[in-house]
Amino acid sequence: MSKPIFVLNGPNLNLLGTREPEIYGKDTLDDIRARCERKAATLGHSIEFRQSNNEGELVSWIQEARDKASGLIINGGAFTHSSIAMLDAILASGIPCVEVHLSNLFRRESFRHRSYISRGAQGLICGFGALSYELGIEALAAMIGAKRTA
Amino acid sequence: MSKPIFVLNGPNLNLLGTREPEIYGKDTLDDIRARCERKAATLGHSIEFRQSNNEGELVSWIQEARDKASGLIINGGAFTHSSIAMLDAILASGIPCVEVHLSNLFRRESFRHRSYISRGAQGLICGFGALSYELGIEALAAMIGAKRTA
Amino acid sequence: MSKPIFVLNGPNLNLLGTREPEIYGKDTLDDIRARCERKAATLGHSIEFRQSNNEGELVSWIQEARDKASGLIINGGAFTHSSIAMLDAILASGIPCVEVHLSNLFRRESFRHRSYISRGAQGLICGFGALSYELGIEALAAMIGAKRTA
Amino acid sequence: MSKPIFVLNGPNLNLLGTREPEIYGKDTLDDIRARCERKAATLGHSIEFRQSNNEGELVSWIQEARDKASGLIINGGAFTHSSIAMLDAILASGIPCVEVHLSNLFRRESFRHRSYISRGAQGLICGFGALSYELGIEALAAMIGAKRTA
Amino acid sequence: MSKPIFVLNGPNLNLLGTREPEIYGKDTLDDIRARCERKAATLGHSIEFRQSNNEGELVSWIQEARDKASGLIINGGAFTHSSIAMLDAILASGIPCVEVHLSNLFRRESFRHRSYISRGAQGLICGFGALSYELGIEALAAMIGAKRTA
Amino acid sequence: MSKPIFVLNGPNLNLLGTREPEIYGKDTLDDIRARCERKAATLGHSIEFRQSNNEGELVSWIQEARDKASGLIINGGAFTHSSIAMLDAILASGIPCVEVHLSNLFRRESFRHRSYISRGAQGLICGFGALSYELGIEALAAMIGAKRTA
Amino acid sequence: MSKPIFVLNGPNLNLLGTREPEIYGKDTLDDIRARCERKAATLGHSIEFRQSNNEGELVSWIQEARDKASGLIINGGAFTHSSIAMLDAILASGIPCVEVHLSNLFRRESFRHRSYISRGAQGLICGFGALSYELGIEALAAMIGAKRTA
Amino acid sequence: MSKPIFVLNGPNLNLLGTREPEIYGKDTLDDIRARCERKAATLGHSIEFRQSNNEGELVSWIQEARDKASGLIINGGAFTHSSIAMLDAILASGIPCVEVHLSNLFRRESFRHRSYISRGAQGLICGFGALSYELGIEALAAMIGAKRTA
Amino acid sequence: MSKPIFVLNGPNLNLLGTREPEIYGKDTLDDIRARCERKAATLGHSIEFRQSNNEGELVSWIQEARDKASGLIINGGAFTHSSIAMLDAILASGIPCVEVHLSNLFRRESFRHRSYISRGAQGLICGFGALSYELGIEALAAMIGAKRTA
Amino acid sequence: MSKPIFVLNGPNLNLLGTREPEIYGKDTLDDIRARCERKAATLGHSIEFRQSNNEGELVSWIQEARDKASGLIINGGAFTHSSIAMLDAILASGIPCVEVHLSNLFRRESFRHRSYISRGAQGLICGFGALSYELGIEALAAMIGAKRTA
Amino acid sequence: MSKPIFVLNGPNLNLLGTREPEIYGKDTLDDIRARCERKAATLGHSIEFRQSNNEGELVSWIQEARDKASGLIINGGAFTHSSIAMLDAILASGIPCVEVHLSNLFRRESFRHRSYISRGAQGLICGFGALSYELGIEALAAMIGAKRTA
Amino acid sequence: MSKPIFVLNGPNLNLLGTREPEIYGKDTLDDIRARCERKAATLGHSIEFRQSNNEGELVSWIQEARDKASGLIINGGAFTHSSIAMLDAILASGIPCVEVHLSNLFRRESFRHRSYISRGAQGLICGFGALSYELGIEALAAMIGAKRTA
Repeated sequence: MSKPIFVLNGPNLNLLGTREPEIYGKDTLDDIRARCERKAATLGHSIEFRQSNNEGELVSWIQEARDKASGLIINGGAFTHSSIAMLDAILASGIPCVEVHLSNLFRRESFRHRSYISRGAQGLICGFGALSYELGIEALAAMIGAKRTA
Repeated sequence: MSKPIFVLNGPNLNLLGTREPEIYGKDTLDDIRARCERKAATLGHSIEFRQSNNEGELVSWIQEARDKASGLIINGGAFTHSSIAMLDAILASGIPCVEVHLSNLFRRESFRHRSYISRGAQGLICGFGALSYELGIEALAAMIGAKRTA
Repeated sequence: MSKPIFVLNGPNLNLLGTREPEIYGKDTLDDIRARCERKAATLGHSIEFRQSNNEGELVSWIQEARDKASGLIINGGAFTHSSIAMLDAILASGIPCVEVHLSNLFRRESFRHRSYISRGAQGLICGFGALSYELGIEALAAMIGAKRTA
Repeated sequence: MSKPIFVLNGPNLNLLGTREPEIYGKDTLDDIRARCERKAATLGHSIEFRQSNNEGELVSWIQEARDKASGLIINGGAFTHSSIAMLDAILASGIPCVEVHLSNLFRRESFRHRSYISRGAQGLICGFGALSYELGIEALAAMIGAKRTA
Repeated sequence: MSKPIFVLNGPNLNLLGTREPEIYGKDTLDDIRARCERKAATLGHSIEFRQSNNEGELVSWIQEARDKASGLIINGGAFTHSSIAMLDAILASGIPCVEVHLSNLFRRESFRHRSYISRGAQGLICGFGALSYELGIEALAAMIGAKRTA
Repeated sequence: MSKPIFVLNGPNLNLLGTREPEIYGKDTLDDIRARCERKAATLGHSIEFRQSNNEGELVSWIQEARDKASGLIINGGAFTHSSIAMLDAILASGIPCVEVHLSNLFRRESFRHRSYISRGAQGLICGFGALSYELGIEALAAMIGAKRTA
Repeated sequence: MSKPIFVLNGPNLNLLGTREPEIYGKDTLDDIRARCERKAATLGHSIEFRQSNNEGELVSWIQEARDKASGLIINGGAFTHSSIAMLDAILASGIPCVEVHLSNLFRRESFRHRSYISRGAQGLICGFGALSYELGIEALAAMIGAKRTA
Repeated sequence: MSKPIFVLNGPNLNLLGTREPEIYGKDTLDDIRARCERKAATLGHSIEFRQSNNEGELVSWIQEARDKASGLIINGGAFTHSSIAMLDAILASGIPCVEVHLSNLFRRESFRHRSYISRGAQGLICGFGALSYELGIEALAAMIGAKRTA
Repeated sequence: MSKPIFVLNGPNLNLLGTREPEIYGKDTLDDIRARCERKAATLGHSIEFRQSNNEGELVSWIQEARDKASGLIINGGAFTHSSIAMLDAILASGIPCVEVHLSNLFRRESFRHRSYISRGAQGLICGFGALSYELGIEALAAMIGAKRTA
Repeated sequence: MSKPIFVLNGPNLNLLGTREPEIYGKDTLDDIRARCERKAATLGHSIEFRQSNNEGELVSWIQEARDKASGLIINGGAFTHSSIAMLDAILASGIPCVEVHLSNLFRRESFRHRSYISRGAQGLICGFGALSYELGIEALAAMIGAKRTA
Repeated sequence: MSKPIFVLNGPNLNLLGTREPEIYGKDTLDDIRARCERKAATLGHSIEFRQSNNEGELVSWIQEARDKASGLIINGGAFTHSSIAMLDAILASGIPCVEVHLSNLFRRESFRHRSYISRGAQGLICGFGALSYELGIEALAAMIGAKRTA
Repeated sequence: MSKPIFVLNGPNLNLLGTREPEIYGKDTLDDIRARCERKAATLGHSIEFRQSNNEGELVSWIQEARDKASGLIINGGAFTHSSIAMLDAILASGIPCVEVHLSNLFRRESFRHRSYISRGAQGLICGFGALSYELGIEALAAMIGAKRTA
């Protein structure tokens, strides 16, 4: 059986649904997980869905994905803007990676406009709430498929 | 019958398929138009697909969209990085807007990292070639649907 | 008979009255035209009032003004902040020029604080809505009068 | 009887007429006062015209204007570019304020391009010599009138 | 019984008393804990006092405080200058927060002048050694009291 | 008898209670003076409480404090961000100094984030309204006491 | 017969000979056209000489040159400093390109020092008035010749 | 009899001799006045020596110097780095001006490296303590002499 | 017996040998450990060799080194560029520290040119692959020896 | 007989033909000298062709050119980007000067985009290899001719 | 017999041992030469050791090294921070190069943090006094050996 | 007999009197030498007066001054703004140094505002033409005298 897609979530995303809903929407992280699972299933994929407030743990999960995942969906949360370690892990992973965000970073404070993760990701989807994840899985599935047939 | 989605393309996108295919892919703009039409049709939408090398024409099309379109997909091309006029037109349009790009802007030259259009768009999708457009239509259709039922 | 004053309006100003009225006020561009005509008439001047979303067209109108106008009122809209071409045309025009804006640019986003047009205009009036235009005509008429008697 | 308009002038404006006339013109500050008085009278207003080289005194006059003036015309002179204290006083004043300058600041040295006062003023008029003040009074009178009838 | 105040300390603060005492003073972190406990007791509060070298753990503690604490005292140590994740957790916490530092950050190296935590804290106290914490508890107690009676 | 603490207030602080109460609170400067006097009395100190809109006068008061005061509480108001002269006077004063602000400067406009006074003050307290002053007096009293017993 | 060299001129160059002759010289654009034709003829080339104030039109001409021209001489005028769209068109053209300017950009205002076109051109010639064009044709002819014989 | 040289001193210079002697030396301002008087006398000049902590007063004294002084020696103290008003007054004065400083500004904190006064002064002398003033008088006397004989 | 040298490795260094070998070489981290052990042994030292993806763990190890190590070799990996916490721990450690990197940071992306660790290390060695570590141990051994004999 | 044109070459240009030929081409400096001589001869000029790795020697040669040369061709090599001394010598030379470069500086590293020499040269030619020199001589000859007939 | 290693020293390094020994140590340049000779001998290499205050001479020596040396050790001294000419010579040399410094540049003034030489060197060693040179020779010998066996 | 004062002059100063006299005055360098000799003689000093266009030679002369001169007068010319090597030599010289310039650097182009030499000089005198040198000798003589009697 094929490897799952890793969907990795950074700090404070465990608070979703209660934290500043006017920015992040009303979906909880469990809602998003469920939507991702359904979406992936319709495309013939499974997912491994995780969240951590700890940069080191996220780095280790991305490293783990090198062998155990077919692709990466990453919402780096606040680490998006500062983590070169996550970028290095993505660059080393050798598997396709899509960066997602619930909100449109470019309409928020200027310190949220810089993303280190973007330098390692094939593409970026932001601003659509939970739908950002589903579109990310769709894009990732297309890339994984293209790789298989290549 | 419902209004179409306007899919507006900026300068040099008419060259797609021949221009620097390692960055922009092999699809021609006609290929993308066809894919957008099919995608929109499956979601119950029609599209109006246009391209211009002229900033003023693009501004006028966005203005036209206020009354005649249900939503906007915009690939501003090189105007993405400089056109406050297109931003102002989007802000004035009052309809949902999704910014798309074929390539991941954030992996290219630094002068391509700044987007004025992002300040007016609900979300951004980039890096997936023609698929960026299809995902954009999917996201836009969801937003239009949410508006109708609201 | 004497030459008219050219009153030139940049991109999106055709939307006035409907677009973000909390920033730009409720007057339409036709209202402003009417007010400008009345104001100019009381000062013994006529006006030629135009709007374009196209930078090139605005440049050509400023060039045309060299021979056909006694002075220039320019609201560059979004081109204010980026158009060196309009600046060069003003510098080449050899007739007095007043820059006007409906809103006070310096209370808005920082990318609206820079004006290339200011480098070519004798003076600047902003923040008074349609009245900015009327005061601009008053200032321009004084400059034209001073030139004639000089 | 109605309250006067305060016309406040910053440092070195007492030297007008003798100081660098190619920049500031030949009018003395008394000439400007006279023109302001005439202009205000035609609009049914009186003025209180003052000049100081002392930032603290200017702050105190703006504070005084809260109760005693119907509006403010301020030519901050060199304090324009540095005085947050004058800005704070204007923000606290609760009455309409117009910033005026004899010269077009944006055609001079770059350290004269920044204005703290602009952040507190409804509008800005610069570049027309003494006429800047008269237009400022006209604009201010319109704002005061609008407030009364509101 | 009422919820405790969380007093959270960032990296290297466990070394206090031995590390660069000319900057940080001679008090150990246990001394500070004792002073905080006494101060809180006199104001009718209890404290929960913790230290971590791990940004993720600090983020999780701030999240925990949402339900279990009446307020937050945070000395972010070196994370003060880089942790957007801690800022996001504070913004999501919905309880009053005071930022404290032993030294006056603004008299040290320039990279210590930027604080992300300040954007989420009601107030800031720095430069008084252990007393900074006691004053912070006093300020926090006042805010908690005001909230209760509001 | 011992020397008083000088509590010096910069421009526009005389307007407190009426000026932008959502930022500065409802206390008047007289309320703050009364709270400072009570606080100081409980700690065995007296205060000399002054306000000026004039930078030069504030500099002279800080100079006066060298001989006549046991310590300084300074709320520089808008001069906080620009007055090197006040900094120099503090550095020359040789007595302990605490910088206070009603609001948290670091949550306001970026031009309010720079403080010259911080370079001369032992510590900084901001964001707690009138309580900032009381905590400042408490911190200052501790420093004065430490100096006496040293 | 071989394809012509396209000589494309940006905004305001139609004013040559009358506009600021101390910067741009006394030659009109027709004079330059004539000199270019003669120069090209001596080298066995023909030219297609055009001018536009419209960025979009210039982009389209550069696109047209892909098939119809042997090489490009571009004087972008004011668009030199801002047009990424023209750069993208040049990069896509696949034919040799020489950037020319009448004046030495690097001795003028600093906003004229940046050229996007330079990133796409093989070489740059500026500062020699109409001669800049002739030298550009000479350089271009050499590159076209080298290509043919390669 | 000829007009005196005005020697004007900015904020905190009245503290000389006691304030940070390792930077400013042990001379008091009275010592400097005496040295200036002796130096001027040997060159056939008299001096008018003043000090103020008030920027406005210094501006007024520079204005006064236009008519009453043969030249200006200015040690702006902390106002050196911020006072455009003093610069404007110097530019308007029409008499020779020498800027002096006790310490070498360029070996101190970077915010002391910028001088507005330098833009208005013929020359600058710094780093020699009280001798800076004497050399300044010598230089000024030479300039006044050259002017007389011119 | 003497204390070991701590050799601490930051995030992603556990991937060595497989990750981007054109930048980082073919040695695995175990190869490097073995080379370090041999090198240290020849110099009469032992080593304690660790790797972590977690900044907090690295900080704690540096703290542990204060008592348990004779010196520090640190390859901070991606944390080199952002970790003030590691810098603070090094500054507090009181033992000699050498910063090493496999690649020459200054030939890579500009965001890898800044090192906080450098501010705390006696010296820096980079660009020699695994040899960087061996040279670092040699340098450190010399510093430890010098300390012992001092 | 008329004075020669000085063709001066900066550091490392003696290595031409062997050094990075993909950037600088295959011509040696002797090849370039020969081409310059032929070109100059056809235009009735002789040349004096020199190279130095020493900035001081280049400055002295430019000084020598004041009296002994009819014009200057300068390829400053690496000194282009840093030598204000060469700029000053050019400004003092009073003879026409053309700056040439083999490669297009503006397509290389950003530290090669700044040219001090440009501020002193009438024009700039870069990107055409040895042909840059020949075109430079042609341009210079035209300027010398114009001067003679003026 | 094999070619020597060139050890090249920049300006002021001839003063070593007497100049600011707290930064540069007590070794004279002759001491360093002797240590380098011994170190090289033990590794089967000879050295050619030179010093110059003249950038041009250093450039010429690096050029000479292309043919006559097996590798380069360069301590550029103050030229490290400004010499693009030395960088270009290193890039052209085609032999391995190690940059060394006595002190850790990154703990000194910020203008010493930038190194042009680093862009051309394989590696960098700094902060260990004379030992930096010995380690550099060790690293260089390893690179030369690897090249021979490759 | 006592050691002479070294008066060292940088590039292009040998051109004085002929080069841009409106900036640098009409005195030749020989005139300045004569004035310096006379001035020094009246103060009981002799001078050694030199000029070079070569940075390395200037560095060597400053080194020579350590043993052979009682003090240094340096007009670095264009090297003022770039030579860290001259700064290092001055710092190593251990004798008093005065920086002089003919023109007031701070009224010229911004790239002439930065001086590395200032960081090593006790004081700076600029703007007085040849008199700057004489005043510099006077200041230096005072410092040498103070040193002797100390």
